[in-house]
Formats: sequence, C-alpha cells, structure tokens
Amino acid sequence: MKACQMMEKEFVYVSKDDTIVDVSIKMEEFKRFTVPVLDDSMKLQGWATSLDITKGLRESKTYMYEIMHGIDEIKVVHKDEPAKNVVIDTSELKLLNLPIIDDNDKVIGVVRPFDIIDTMSDLYDVKVYKIYEAMQEQLKGISWEELMNASAKVTTRTTGIPVTAEQYEANIRKATFGDAIWATGGLESFFAGLISVGELVIAQRVANARK
Amino acid sequence: MKACQMMEKEFVYVSKDDTIVDVSIKMEEFKRFTVPVLDDSMKLQGWATSLDITKGLRESKTYMYEIMHGIDEIKVVHKDEPAKNVVIDTSELKLLNLPIIDDNDKVIGVVRPFDIIDTMSDLYDVKVYKIYEAMQEQLKGISWEELMNASAKVTTRTTGIPVTAEQYEANIRKATFGDAIWATGGLESFFAGLISVGELVIAQRVANARK
Repeated sequence: MKACQMMEKEFVYVSKDDTIVDVSIKMEEFKRFTVPVLDDSMKLQGWATSLDITKGLRESKTYMYEIMHGIDEIKVVHKDEPAKNVVIDTSELKLLNLPIIDDNDKVIGVVRPFDIIDTMSDLYDVKVYKIYEAMQEQLKGISWEELMNASAKVTTRTTGIPVTAEQYEANIRKATFGDAIWATGGLESFFAGLISVGELVIAQRVANARK
Repeated sequence: MKACQMMEKEFVYVSKDDTIVDVSIKMEEFKRFTVPVLDDSMKLQGWATSLDITKGLRESKTYMYEIMHGIDEIKVVHKDEPAKNVVIDTSELKLLNLPIIDDNDKVIGVVRPFDIIDTMSDLYDVKVYKIYEAMQEQLKGISWEELMNASAKVTTRTTGIPVTAEQYEANIRKATFGDAIWATGGLESFFAGLISVGELVIAQRVANARK
C-alpha cells in the first residue's frame, strides 16, 4: 500500500497572504485544526495550526506569513512511499495532517489520523469465516463441515467449554479478526489455533485415506 | 482490551471559570487542540476545541463557560467498555480527544487518535517469525528447518521466483505482519500461505512415517 492510497484528495488549504481572521473562520467552518499554506501552483510554502492562530489573534498579528511555520519544519511524504511511513510519522510526530506530494512537489492530498485508523480498522474488520474460507480453498478436498467439526473440537479442548460445530460457525460468522485477536490474546495464539485446526483436518484426511 | 487500556492518564483539562486567553496559552503550551472542562471533582462539565477558542477570541468573549460545548454534545466512553468502541467513535465522529469515565462519572483519562494508531500498530509490528514459532510449537515434532524448507518451496511455487530456506528465514526475521499482509495482498492470502506451509510439512511427516 502506498501513501497516496490513504490520503484525502479534498483538503482545506490557505495562502500566506490570507488574513489570520479569514483563515480562522475557514478552519472553524471546515473543522480543520491544521492547514497547509500553498502557493498558486499548489507547492507547500508553510503550515499553521489552530494553536498558531490563537496565538496570532492574541498578539494581534494580521497575515498568515507572520505566523506560519516554514517548510523546513514540515514533514511531507511522497505519494509513492509505503503507507507505513505515513503511520510512523503521524504516530511519532503526533501529526493531525500530513501533506502528500507528487514528483513536482505539489501537494495532492493530506493524511489525517482518522484515515490511518480507518485503513487499519479494515484489517481488524475482516470476518473470521473469510479466513476459514481461504483455509478451505487451500486445503483441497476438505469440506466446510469437516473444518467446523475440527474447529469445535480444538476450541472445546483449548477452552474446556464444549462447543458444537453449529455454534462455532455462528460465532465466526459474527466475529471479526479484531475480536478474535483480542479474545485469543494475540496474533500468535490466534494463528496457532487455526494451524491446530488445519492439522486436525489433515490428520483426519490421512486417516480416512488409509481406511 | 478495554477502553482504559488505551487511554492517557495524564491529560490537560480546564475549568469553566478560566479565561479564554489563559486556556489558549495552556493549549498552545501543551499542544492540545481540544480540552475537557471539568469541575473540582473531575466530573465533565463541557468541552472546547481550539476552533472554539479562535471564535471566542475573535468575538471578544472572556470566560470558558461562554464558549464551551455542553455535556449533552460530548461523547464519553466508560473505562470498561471494549476498546473497539473507542475506535469506532473516534473514527466516525473524527474525535481528537475522547474522555474515559469511571463508575462515578469522573474523567480518568482521554484517548487521542495517536493512542489508537499506536495500539493498532503493535499488531502490525509483530514479526512474522513469531507466527512461525507459534506454528512450530503447535505442530509438535516439526523442526524449524522443515518449516523453512516447506515455506521456501511454497513461496517458490506461488511467486515463480526461486527462494532458498535461508533467504526465506532472513526475510521473516525482518518482515512484520503488516509487511506480510501488504505483500501478500490481504489477511486471507497471508493465512492461506501459512496453511499451505502447514499442509506441506504435515504431508512430509506422514510420508516419512510410512518409509
């Protein structure tokens, strides 16, 4: 995944010659706490947060160029960089808005923390039965019933609480990967459980083939 | 995971009788774009963002109670609610700061988007070899070499690019779960690959037992 796949293409920006009062009204209107300052060709000239604005208003400054941060203070990410870099920069520098630039240094979008949370949530929201479907497809010749029976057995053995194949299936139709991770206590345990199921169905297939 | 496991216990808050100017200076100092307004017993009375502050300064208001949002407009989460609710609220309502309350309605912390990103990143940052270690532990009697050999075979078969067991091991020592998800194209594909490896080592073990 690239940085540009996470960005918002519609974003609010201002000019260095705008007045601080006008910018404050614009930021309130669009509920933006930080804004890039761009020139006419969409190149980055500076940056301001609503905290720079409060200070500017208090100190009776007039224009954005009086209060904006210079480009040397601004972190930018190129559109083709890995999305992971956006996550690291946002998290480490506590950025509310990270500008994404193209090959000509033009700002083509911004990433906000919410964009990152939404992207990461997509992974958490994968339904567990989708993983089972991938597993069934991989293990050619294993039926969905065999998989559910094996899962119910493994779960009963691990938790000590009897579960039927039907109950198990109902659970994984509802549960997301995020639920499963949190319920089993971590990624490694979740996968260990799945591998355990895989092992059981394979062993049963071998046993059946020998009959 | 509970909401309170994600929250920051040290947070900035203000009183409704504080002046807007004092609060603006405090918010700039601590780089906070939103602040809860609490009474002496730490109960929530209101909320303000730096955008409310810019408006208040522009309109020459004096005290926080003149500009703060009332508690009916504020989303709060109880400390024992699932962390997932915090993620959903933050993402849907684009919250920069979500107050966490205890049984007595006292604010005991706040969650910022960065806290969520950090928590989610922990999952992405699990090294892939940790998942293999869990797999090896689960598949009793399978050696690490067998696992790496099988993985190299499956990868060579899937990608068409020859990979040795040593190269494969070097890769998974460096790569994170996030890298793997993005490289294989999704959670289901990543897991299908792991199952494929599990299937191969189990088949080999069965074949060896027959010799």
